[in-house]
Amino acid sequence: MALIVMKFGGSSVADTQRLYRVAERITNTYKEGNDVVVVLSAQGDTTDELIAKAEEVNLNGSKREMDMLLACGEQMSVALEAMAIQRLGCPVVSLNAWQVGIHTDSRYSGARIRRVDASRIRMELDRKRIVLVTGFQGISPDGDLTTLGRGGSDTSAVALAVALKADLCQIFTDVDGIYTADPRLVSNAKKLQEITYDEMLELASLGAQVLHNRSVQMAKRYHVDLEVLTSFANVPGTIVKEVVKMEKVIISGVAKDCSIARIALVGLNNEPGVAYQLFSLLAKKKIDVDVILQSIGRGDSKDISFTVDLADCDEAAAVLEANRDELGFDHLDVRKDVAKVSIVGGGMLNTPGIAAAMFQALYEEHINIQMISTSEIKVSVLIDKAQADRAVRAIHSKFFD
Amino acid sequence: MALIVMKFGGSSVADTQRLYRVAERITNTYKEGNDVVVVLSAQGDTTDELIAKAEEVNLNGSKREMDMLLACGEQMSVALEAMAIQRLGCPVVSLNAWQVGIHTDSRYSGARIRRVDASRIRMELDRKRIVLVTGFQGISPDGDLTTLGRGGSDTSAVALAVALKADLCQIFTDVDGIYTADPRLVSNAKKLQEITYDEMLELASLGAQVLHNRSVQMAKRYHVDLEVLTSFANVPGTIVKEVVKMEKVIISGVAKDCSIARIALVGLNNEPGVAYQLFSLLAKKKIDVDVILQSIGRGDSKDISFTVDLADCDEAAAVLEANRDELGFDHLDVRKDVAKVSIVGGGMLNTPGIAAAMFQALYEEHINIQMISTSEIKVSVLIDKAQADRAVRAIHSKFFD
Repeated sequence: MALIVMKFGGSSVADTQRLYRVAERITNTYKEGNDVVVVLSAQGDTTDELIAKAEEVNLNGSKREMDMLLACGEQMSVALEAMAIQRLGCPVVSLNAWQVGIHTDSRYSGARIRRVDASRIRMELDRKRIVLVTGFQGISPDGDLTTLGRGGSDTSAVALAVALKADLCQIFTDVDGIYTADPRLVSNAKKLQEITYDEMLELASLGAQVLHNRSVQMAKRYHVDLEVLTSFANVPGTIVKEVVKMEKVIISGVAKDCSIARIALVGLNNEPGVAYQLFSLLAKKKIDVDVILQSIGRGDSKDISFTVDLADCDEAAAVLEANRDELGFDHLDVRKDVAKVSIVGGGMLNTPGIAAAMFQALYEEHINIQMISTSEIKVSVLIDKAQADRAVRAIHSKFFD
Repeated sequence: MALIVMKFGGSSVADTQRLYRVAERITNTYKEGNDVVVVLSAQGDTTDELIAKAEEVNLNGSKREMDMLLACGEQMSVALEAMAIQRLGCPVVSLNAWQVGIHTDSRYSGARIRRVDASRIRMELDRKRIVLVTGFQGISPDGDLTTLGRGGSDTSAVALAVALKADLCQIFTDVDGIYTADPRLVSNAKKLQEITYDEMLELASLGAQVLHNRSVQMAKRYHVDLEVLTSFANVPGTIVKEVVKMEKVIISGVAKDCSIARIALVGLNNEPGVAYQLFSLLAKKKIDVDVILQSIGRGDSKDISFTVDLADCDEAAAVLEANRDELGFDHLDVRKDVAKVSIVGGGMLNTPGIAAAMFQALYEEHINIQMISTSEIKVSVLIDKAQADRAVRAIHSKFFD
């Protein structure tokens, strides 16, 4: 007997048929003798529909009221799922995050979990009930509803797994595990049995949006074993943990991220402090910068390039233009037709030539590399967006075929 | 400056345009310098839609989970209304009943309010905020969500008015006040400026469903002045209070109730205890009985007739048939094509001939009276359903023209 936290995303509970598929999954785990705690997202497009309703009323409504509205999405999910489980004949109770005691700070729409009270859930588990909990939300120190931001349900699940000292936290998604590349793109992509937290973090930040990064970070910090698997089939998924089997492949996956843009400041004054000024300006606007590349200064001028989220690109460019005199650059070069392609894997640390093999794969496809960035377990390149899919296939083939 | 509780029903907040109409109403009251607490129902058909969703999943889901689901309706209303008020530039906060502290018992789907904690609302009012509260719901001693049953939002409003010692509790509805008859039926029906709690209770139980009876009873017990008015126009409504002006009309209104049925037990044993047996059987099935009429016994047999809700009629008849031997009657006579037409008014107490005038109006229209029932402030007759509208017009004309 184990204590298992299961988390199902919005598409897994989108309609009555899917609610029942999930109910069977839950009750099967329960009937095997496990204590089962389930975290649910809002059904299908519910959250988007609620946001649309709010925007029809007021485009600038407060985040507090938005959280009050959005919290209904998961509350409806857990109530309906409980009814489905009741029909399957198992004892069940649904709880809102505030009833559990998922305590957060007061940052509406992007709250951080501070503390989880396990007592109510423990009591319900002692009564042999399946416990359903609303994901994505919490309660502030003032007793108001908060939401954790998009993808927050993963974080809710891991936080509950930590508080309950669960044996396993299963995250059910559209995909049946973590693959060496997007299976829609690379037909012979392989499913990984295991992957480390760090590799998962790199993959998540690279656009392979299977798990929310905050949840992986929390799982890593508290040593919670995660399993990523699908609710649409009964097959094992991928386990995310600290250390994986030694015979593992050198790289875990190839990923692309097409929602980025590159901004270059050309002819910057070659003075100390320019980079500091530049990135402080962007940080003030809460614009995250990813890959940064600075040319070697020649005489009194240098260039700095960096990538930002495509959604932040216009704002970033505007901020920089507005401060052109202060920063002292010649002109901005903005490109939105770029993509970042990366390989991730703990194995590359001790394996020379990984980056070279990646570059060779691109060269053989005549794909030009605009920028390169590396970390201990990752190599990323910036290339033309139109060539991104071809690049992923070529790199995957180089390492996995 | 006064403290005013305003309650708006589901049709008043059914869409964005109506949310803004209500927002203007609320902010106008606020700008006049009043403390404003607002109770809202779920928007339009939201509750029915949620019930339909639940029934698609499980026709026999627990009431606890149904309450969990339905509570979302009002939560969405208050959040959206708050956003509308924010756009009009007034400070506002929305609160769920559990955040306010509307404490109920644990009777899911039909909970009774036990205690209302006013401290959170007081704090928000001290900060000069308009406070929006979800109607229809509360929190159980175990910390679970409850709902008060249909029409419970009126009760929420009165309970808050009591707890806050409000100066006035305004109930906004589809109609702009209490009329001497249904204005859709009687073109010259007059709006009453004032009506007593008792008259209102009689009218509500007679099918003039403007106010929920529980709310009127609570208002009467705690001396809360109610005003019934419309959110669709800026006109004064009808005040419901303990004592009304002396020059008031003798009867306050004429009402009909078409959702009843008459059951007669013919040829009952003329023995003591038969009536007790009969109505105990119905009470066990929670079937409410209204007008009861017992014929004078002739020899060893007598007849008993009574009315029940049309919805309970078949069940009542089945229960009686199943106990035919025990009760010892000859046969049942069930009629569903009946209506109850009533006149209500505190004035009739001291005015002889009121009932006679009513019967005369019916006689002049050749309408046959099947049963008669009277109380101190009410006279009801049972007639053919097909004649009900004509009866209301004739009686209204007799008293008000």
